[in-house]
Order: sequence, then structure tokens, then C-alpha cells
Amino acid sequence: MKFTLHDTDSQSKARAGTITTFHGVIETPIFMPVGTVASVKGVHQRELKQDIDPDIILGNTYHLFLRPKTHILREAGGLHKFMGWDRNILTDSGGYQVYSLSANRKIKEEGVKFKSHIDGSMHFFTPENVMEIQRTIGADIIMAFDECTPYPCEYTYAERSMKMTHRWLDRCLAHLEKTPVEYGFDQAFFPIVQGSTFKDLRKRSAEYIANVDAEGNAIGGLSVGEPAEEMYEMTEVVCAILPQDKPRYLMGVGTPINILENIALGIDMFDCVMPTRNARNGMLFTAHGTINIKNKKWENDFSPVDGMGITFVDLEYSKAYLRHLFAANEYLGKQIATIHNLGFYLWLVREARKHILKGDFMEWKNKMVKQMDKRL
Amino acid sequence: MKFTLHDTDSQSKARAGTITTFHGVIETPIFMPVGTVASVKGVHQRELKQDIDPDIILGNTYHLFLRPKTHILREAGGLHKFMGWDRNILTDSGGYQVYSLSANRKIKEEGVKFKSHIDGSMHFFTPENVMEIQRTIGADIIMAFDECTPYPCEYTYAERSMKMTHRWLDRCLAHLEKTPVEYGFDQAFFPIVQGSTFKDLRKRSAEYIANVDAEGNAIGGLSVGEPAEEMYEMTEVVCAILPQDKPRYLMGVGTPINILENIALGIDMFDCVMPTRNARNGMLFTAHGTINIKNKKWENDFSPVDGMGITFVDLEYSKAYLRHLFAANEYLGKQIATIHNLGFYLWLVREARKHILKGDFMEWKNKMVKQMDKRL
Ligand SMILES: [Zn+2]
Ligand SMILES: [Zn+2]
Repeated sequence: MKFTLHDTDSQSKARAGTITTFHGVIETPIFMPVGTVASVKGVHQRELKQDIDPDIILGNTYHLFLRPKTHILREAGGLHKFMGWDRNILTDSGGYQVYSLSANRKIKEEGVKFKSHIDGSMHFFTPENVMEIQRTIGADIIMAFDECTPYPCEYTYAERSMKMTHRWLDRCLAHLEKTPVEYGFDQAFFPIVQGSTFKDLRKRSAEYIANVDAEGNAIGGLSVGEPAEEMYEMTEVVCAILPQDKPRYLMGVGTPINILENIALGIDMFDCVMPTRNARNGMLFTAHGTINIKNKKWENDFSPVDGMGITFVDLEYSKAYLRHLFAANEYLGKQIATIHNLGFYLWLVREARKHILKGDFMEWKNKMVKQMDKRL
Repeated sequence: MKFTLHDTDSQSKARAGTITTFHGVIETPIFMPVGTVASVKGVHQRELKQDIDPDIILGNTYHLFLRPKTHILREAGGLHKFMGWDRNILTDSGGYQVYSLSANRKIKEEGVKFKSHIDGSMHFFTPENVMEIQRTIGADIIMAFDECTPYPCEYTYAERSMKMTHRWLDRCLAHLEKTPVEYGFDQAFFPIVQGSTFKDLRKRSAEYIANVDAEGNAIGGLSVGEPAEEMYEMTEVVCAILPQDKPRYLMGVGTPINILENIALGIDMFDCVMPTRNARNGMLFTAHGTINIKNKKWENDFSPVDGMGITFVDLEYSKAYLRHLFAANEYLGKQIATIHNLGFYLWLVREARKHILKGDFMEWKNKMVKQMDKRL
């Protein structure tokens, strides 16, 4: 993996770069649509590629491990071939889902024992086997196995957990050394900064992670319920320590406004289920605010879904039609809203990149943040 | 509406024709995908047009009447504009859904009182208001309001019901005369032959309907549970009486084999929820038999969904991937299967047309029927 920094904004920490891997170039800042279980829910791969057009998507190790299971992915020749996606993929380490989805999980130094949310079967994730699973899934970027602390979190728990995440990182690194790639192309490994919302812990964790000198670095444990201001503070503290010449990935963030604010603080990569999950609930993000398309006020509004026309759904369908599909519980409504939201998120990060390169990022960002902070 | 008969098969009653309306040409035999409530479930209009490519789709008056309701369709300028479909549309008369979906319905000479399956509200359909509703929906072809008898059905009930359907037909015709079109283009009106599975009733009904000299004629009350042989017998009896120079529409039929057999008996138009509904249950129709994609045998079959590649989904996704999507309950699985099945149905009727024009329809039909009668 190669990261090239093309430009850093003069009035903020915003950066425009490119990441180059075996599966192509990723222009940063980037938002990665979440393809949980080898599918971005309700979106054909053709639409994802041609209409939404992200350079990279995310897969969830926890979900893929349970279904279709790693042996099927190995027989398929990896996730890219299995799902028919020839651009970049990043997989998380499964930790976050184990903590949030599994009814029953026990975290120990050795690893995490958990119960599948699907069939109740018991499984054990360790830094070692999660590296092996990610080798078999075969993403271009793979993540360290960490503990993602909840919010709020006691200082003593956050510190103890952070230290264990650091020890797990060392185990991940040691095991990766011994575990060859499976499909003939490199996998970049990103360690994860933890430390909850405590500045001193975040600093210590960022220093530990920076020291590893990985190809890219991630910030985890944010966007878990804390106020946005606390999130931004943590990002700022951590970005001051993480190396400039490596991409920085803020995991699980966020709203369009969160994304712009964090770009201003030096973040290059994002992922979040918000555009897809909220779409399925009828919530549309636009450049001029959010729309709850289920609202009766759209019943006879025959104007396009979004006059900006970022993707085909925005001009081909009307608000009244989309509202009707949600009222009638027709799945096409969720499909349209998902393509709209993902199209908008990708437009947003591409615009951010253009303005960073053009030199007027902060002006644009401030205007957009104000404009998007409305309910239509 | 203009119907041109191009060719009639020498060894069967199969016909190749074209129907021309304001919204374009319909090549027959045709299969009409069902767009129940202004959406072919899980299929974007773009896919419907470019990938599945039917000249006409069907909308359900009962569903559209309840949601989005006729006043919204009027404000939109009709169903074509509301859903963004600029080719032909046919609407049924709502009768079938009233009998099959409404928990509570009372059939009287005046009309049918029924309870909405959605919110329990009470409504009353009469031949007159159903004509008005279909004017407001604004399809290119609209259907008579009839009673669709269940199977099996007592002879006396079938006869009494058939006679009422004929009286209702006269009321439909009288009321249509007084009800102008709403959007500036003509609507063709098709009466419906009833008579359950009784040859003499079917004959009498066909004669009554033929006498109306409508622009096209339909056969209803079949594909309601009777053996295929009985359906074919009724089609044969009725087609011998219905005029040659008008299109014949067999409502609610059926399997790919049913469609080919009925084409051989002189049917020009079909609709059925089978390709879409069965798709959502993981059942794929192919030229070589049916596939239950949920079956474990496909788990590691990485060959294309259908090597024939009729639509993009057939070659872009593998059986193992599609099976995984169904196992993981991912909606993309239903989307893929729906596009596959509809693509296959449209391919089937287009092939039938080609073979009728070429003169080897029966040979091809017999080969296909044998070939498709398998579980893969
Ligand atoms: Zn998130
Ligand atoms: Zn049917």
C-alpha cells in the first residue's frame, strides 16, 4: 500500500491524498459504504460501482465469519471474487460487533468468547485467529483486534482496556508475520487507537500506535454515544500524534457534519452504517438538510427526490413516489433511499477533496455544516 | 389501440402480433410483470426498462386505490407519471384482490363491500366506480369489474356469478361512455370471460363477451387451483369463440410451462406474480428447470446464477453468492432472483414469438416444456 499526501489545507488539518493498492487507487478523504455480510444492503454491485462509485467498501469480519463462513470465502478465492467487487475492501476485526451484537461475550486476556447472534453457537476470537480470518477474507486493508470501550466508561476500565488492546496489537503483529497472504496481493494492516474520551489515554494510545509504524492508523471507540464535541477533541489530540504520512481512519463516523468536522481535523477515511441504516428508515441526507420521507408533507410533492441529481434515483423518482413506497412498505423505497444517501456521502467527501485541493475547504465546510444542520 | 396479427402458427393456435397504443408497441405474446402498488417489488424502473425490457406492466387497482389513493394519482397526472414508467400499463379491476385479500367482503348485485386488508376501513366497489378509478389511474388497458369464482365451484354458483359478471360488464360499458379519459390518451377496455371450469358456461360467457366487440378480451377465473389440464381445456374452448383479430389475455397465468401451452392455444397476453413472488422465496426459473437457491447444494457452486446470461444478474453473481444472500436474509438476494425470473419470463415470450414467426413454434415449445419440467 502506498499513501501520497497531495495537499494539506492551510486553515485546517484537512488533507487530500491517494492510497494505492493492488485493487486500485483510493482518493482521500473517503467514505467507505458498509457491506456488512458481503452486500451493501439493497444495492446491486453494478449500482455501487457505477452510480455511487466508492473506491473502497467495508466488510464486517464478525458477520462474514458467521455467514457465509471463512471456508466458503476461501473456496471462492476471497471476498472480492465471492461478491463480485474488484475495487478495494477493508475489513474490521470483528471486535465491535462481538461487543454490540453478541448477547453473551466474555473478554479475557486471551481473547473474546462469544455467542453467535444468529444461532447461539459459541465462538472464540483472539488476536491470532482474527488475523487468520482476515487473511482468508482477503481484504486490501485489515484491522487490529481491539476492545472498543462503551460510552460512558470509567477511567480505570478505559486504561486497563487500552493496555490490553496494545498487547493484543503486539500479538496481531507477531501473528501476521507468520501468516502469509492467501490470494497473492498485499494486505495493509491498521492498528487502532483506543482510550475512550480521556485525553491522556488517547495520547498514550496514539503514541503506542504511532510507534508501530503501520501503513495506516485508525481511531476506534468513538461515535459510541459521546457528544460530538468530545469526539472532535479526541480526534484532534490523536491526529497531532499519528504520523502525517500515513492515512488516518476514524471508525464508525458519522453524520455528514461529523465527517466534515473530522476531515478538518486531519481524518482521511470514514465508515458508518448511518447512510444505509437511516435510509431504510426513510431518512435522507441532502446538502440542504435531512428529510424524513415518511412525513405526510411529501405526499403530493412531485418534485424530484433531490434536485441536485447526484445519482439516478434523485431525478428519476419524486418525493411523493418515494413517500408512497415507504407508506406501502415497498422495498424499492429502501433501495432508492440507500442509493441516494450513499451517493450523497460520496459526493460530500469528493467535494471536500476538491475544496482542499482548491484551497477554500474551511469556507466551504462552514457553509455546508450550517446548510446541512436543518430538517426539511 | 390497434392490434395487428402478423402470423398464426400452422401446427397450433399460437399467434404473433403487435398492440399499438399511445405509450408504444407491445409485441405479443407478452408477459406483463406485476407492479402491484406502483412498483415491481425490489426492481428499479431503470432495471425494469433496460434489463427486463417488457413493453407493458400491470398495476393492481385494489392496491392503488388503497395506497397512494386515487386523488394522489390524479394530482401526479396518472400512474405513468407517478411511478416514472413511460411504457404501457394495464390495470386489473380490483375484483380478484377484493376476493382474495379482504377478510370481509359482501358481494351483491350492486357491487362489493369490502374491508381494507391494511387498515380495516370499509369500501364499496361497483362496476361504475371501478371504471372511474381506472380512468384516474390512467392505464392504457383497463379491465371490466367481474367476480372471479374460486376453485372448486358449484355449477349453480358459477352460472349465477357468470351472469352477474355479464350484467356488471354492461354497466361498465355504459358508465365508461359517460366517463371521459383524464390524461388525453385513449384507454382500451377488455371484458372478462368467466364460467369456472364448466365448458358450457365458458362457451356462453365467451359468446357474450365476443358480442361486446371490445378492443381486446380476457379470460379470468383460471389459475385459481384447478389442474393445468382443466385450465388448458377452458382456454381452448374460449379461444375458439373469441375473435381472432383481437388480443386475448389470460389473467394470472402462470408457470413458464403454462405460458407456452396457453400460447399454443391462442393466448397473447399473460400476467402472474409467480416469477416475482417465487423469486423472493429463492425459486429461480431457468430454461433447464427450476432452482431452489436456498438449497445447501449451491453453497460452494461458484458458477454464474444462469449461464444463459439473459440479464446482468445472471453472469455477475454466482449461485453460491446468491445462496449466501438468501441464507443471510439479505434483500439483495430477492432483488437478484426477481430480475433473473422476470428476465427469463420475458426471454421466454420473446423466444416464443420468434419461433412462431419462424414457423417452428411447436417443435421448440415441446422441447422447452420437457426441458423446463425439472428441478435442478
Ligand atoms: Zn456510525
Ligand atoms: Zn398467477
